[in-house]
Amino acid sequence: MTDALETLRTSIKALFEAKKYATLRDILSTMNAADIASLFEDDISEEIIPLLYRLLPKELAADTFVEMDTDTQEMLIKSFSDSELKEVIDELYVDDAVDLVEEMPANVVKRILLQADPEKRAMINTMLKYPEDSAGSIMTTEYVELRPRMTVEDAILSIRRSGIEKETINNCYITSSARKLLGAVTIRGIIMAAPETTMEQIMEENVISVGTMEDQETVAQHFSKYNLLAMPVVDGEDRLVGIVTVDDVLDVLEEEATEDIEKMAAIVPADKPYLKLSTFDLWKSRIPWLLLLMISATFTGMIITSFENALSKFVILTAYIPMLMDTGGNSGGQASATIIRGLSLKDIEFSDIFRVIWKEIRVALACGATLAICNFAKLLLFDKVSVPVALTICLTLIVTIFCAKLVGCTLPMIAYKIGFDPAVMASPFITTIVDAISLLVYFQFASRILSI
Amino acid sequence: MTDALETLRTSIKALFEAKKYATLRDILSTMNAADIASLFEDDISEEIIPLLYRLLPKELAADTFVEMDTDTQEMLIKSFSDSELKEVIDELYVDDAVDLVEEMPANVVKRILLQADPEKRAMINTMLKYPEDSAGSIMTTEYVELRPRMTVEDAILSIRRSGIEKETINNCYITSSARKLLGAVTIRGIIMAAPETTMEQIMEENVISVGTMEDQETVAQHFSKYNLLAMPVVDGEDRLVGIVTVDDVLDVLEEEATEDIEKMAAIVPADKPYLKLSTFDLWKSRIPWLLLLMISATFTGMIITSFENALSKFVILTAYIPMLMDTGGNSGGQASATIIRGLSLKDIEFSDIFRVIWKEIRVALACGATLAICNFAKLLLFDKVSVPVALTICLTLIVTIFCAKLVGCTLPMIAYKIGFDPAVMASPFITTIVDAISLLVYFQFASRILSI
Repeated sequence: MTDALETLRTSIKALFEAKKYATLRDILSTMNAADIASLFEDDISEEIIPLLYRLLPKELAADTFVEMDTDTQEMLIKSFSDSELKEVIDELYVDDAVDLVEEMPANVVKRILLQADPEKRAMINTMLKYPEDSAGSIMTTEYVELRPRMTVEDAILSIRRSGIEKETINNCYITSSARKLLGAVTIRGIIMAAPETTMEQIMEENVISVGTMEDQETVAQHFSKYNLLAMPVVDGEDRLVGIVTVDDVLDVLEEEATEDIEKMAAIVPADKPYLKLSTFDLWKSRIPWLLLLMISATFTGMIITSFENALSKFVILTAYIPMLMDTGGNSGGQASATIIRGLSLKDIEFSDIFRVIWKEIRVALACGATLAICNFAKLLLFDKVSVPVALTICLTLIVTIFCAKLVGCTLPMIAYKIGFDPAVMASPFITTIVDAISLLVYFQFASRILSI
Repeated sequence: MTDALETLRTSIKALFEAKKYATLRDILSTMNAADIASLFEDDISEEIIPLLYRLLPKELAADTFVEMDTDTQEMLIKSFSDSELKEVIDELYVDDAVDLVEEMPANVVKRILLQADPEKRAMINTMLKYPEDSAGSIMTTEYVELRPRMTVEDAILSIRRSGIEKETINNCYITSSARKLLGAVTIRGIIMAAPETTMEQIMEENVISVGTMEDQETVAQHFSKYNLLAMPVVDGEDRLVGIVTVDDVLDVLEEEATEDIEKMAAIVPADKPYLKLSTFDLWKSRIPWLLLLMISATFTGMIITSFENALSKFVILTAYIPMLMDTGGNSGGQASATIIRGLSLKDIEFSDIFRVIWKEIRVALACGATLAICNFAKLLLFDKVSVPVALTICLTLIVTIFCAKLVGCTLPMIAYKIGFDPAVMASPFITTIVDAISLLVYFQFASRILSI
């Protein structure tokens, strides 16, 4: 794919320099909007993008525009005349126009809103008011709305008349004259029914809808639970105000998973792709947790300091500190990652906490025993330490893994219950706690078994 | 949602005991398949599920069946008579039937295939041959196929005749008489066109398709890149054999993200939800990496042992080992998590490796400097160590973070290049390497600065 794009890029440049515009237009017309956008994003020199863009057929141009990254969009808009800008905005669906307005700097936004026709401008302004990541912010207001008394024939006529501007006609919504959502019908339902059937007769009344303020993550979960292609969004009075379509949900799912992964790696999520982030952006997203965790690790150091005497008598014990800390951290990290993902997919609820703890206890004992046995053999056979020392290390290992799994599974669940993001309770955070626990346990066992 | 289900569960039980079957049927008929399935999965006693299931209208029953977990499905099938089983299988789409057959024990599979009609049995058997997680394994063979010369009128007639059995009619595919894929047309395209227009005239010829053996992750990426609702699957001779629909892609996206998260937490992915996994399953998925990483941590221990003398002279140095190791691990983990996710979303390609390294070098220096300055102040003001000791610790910190970020960003990219899963090169693995590096650096600086 990438190699093919590379070749294409070279030949497009060559054609452009040879001024073979008609050939260029033919090539570009057969391409997908997403591919043209990636072509524009990389390497092609900035000056020729506006010229190439003007070669695209109108509809493809609008589709390509939507697929481009913010920088390229901004550059293009700046090169547009007012009438060119108006043309692009007229072609955009409202939800894409809103995304655009949210990303652009203020002076560009002003130009965009000025060129949008009054109706679209009003829609954009309404949608801009919904909080980021809410159902309202990802919905579109261009959907097919039908009335309960319409027959199949009326409905098809109405769809043919207005369908071209709608984001989808696959799911249509039946509303009362007060715009209350009464039901939904698929285009399949309409096509399969006899011409004189009314919408009332074929509509599904039990429609799953969300409020405008609902979190986009919840919306995405509904889509995957109920296998939806579109979902209506209603306001406080149950009036239909928009629909969310499945293509936007794909993006939400990817975005939410990325956010979880970032949080689990002690990163403050940034909402741009890696290569678009500046050094300062990356520093800003990574330094808070590094700093916090570094300070917390001080406690672990304090524990070691307070056992300085014991350690100086049995220096060999120091050699096993990293192994104990790492194994503890890894065990806890495994438990927390599993629980965090389970909570985020709603496979696990807070009410399952006792089942989870009981499961983790058994897994911890099984893992602890396995690792302790392997380690005991290795300590005696390879490291040739004394039996009491080996015992100290292996008992610490079992207790550490036990505590790590327990901390690793309970902290995310408690965070979830009190409304915090469980993803923060992942490996780095758990490791810091488990480090301290493992050292305390280690020195306890050492002082009992080795009597120091 | 969950509380509402709880209340519902109680009232359904009560109605069942009071033998109010008609009321029960009315309640169940208004519910969603997914909700009925979750109702059946939890707590409701096993004996009454088959009885409740028989109250459902036929189509809703089949939908509910698809949504249930494997255990409930198996239990239900065992309670079915042959004719009841046949009824369910007749209602299932082929891809759902294949999923079912893949999950059930051999004796149940035999019964299922025996009850399926010959045509469906043949389709199931063909699809079972595709490898797990391939496009072939997630596609459906029930799609709308049209011919190039068909007019809009013919097409609508054909869809009305066969559409009810198809998984979707929103996307239709145009094939030659040799079943070669010629183009695609949406139901919107058909409805909007004049009755005498032929499919040839309105079809999109530049259709994005995949081969049967393509990885499901690639399929999912195409859906999100090109905003697709369905994608055709072709065999080696470019003949259309099936389509993948977006609802299955939602599941793939969630599954793949879960797998990445598990691998990044040193877990061997298991393909069941957490609460369905036995202690043995969990032990099996967690112990391999714990064991491997425990053994690798031995090297870190060996480094400490070889510097035993130095440490016994400056015991204070031991107290900062956990902080240095943790900060190194966290820094490396941040870099690797970002790169792994970027690779998996195709935001980053191997060809970006030098841009990535250069970015990470700058971020590492920025983070290292910040942390070192904070730490230096803390060491002198609170811990009251000598300046040379503080210098040793802070210089180690900078070098460790530098190495950690470098290792954290290059290992996943190299793994990706040589065809390994980059997700394995995440925090636990990086931590083990960085631990050793940080100690080596620590003792180097200690011996130079503190001349031990």
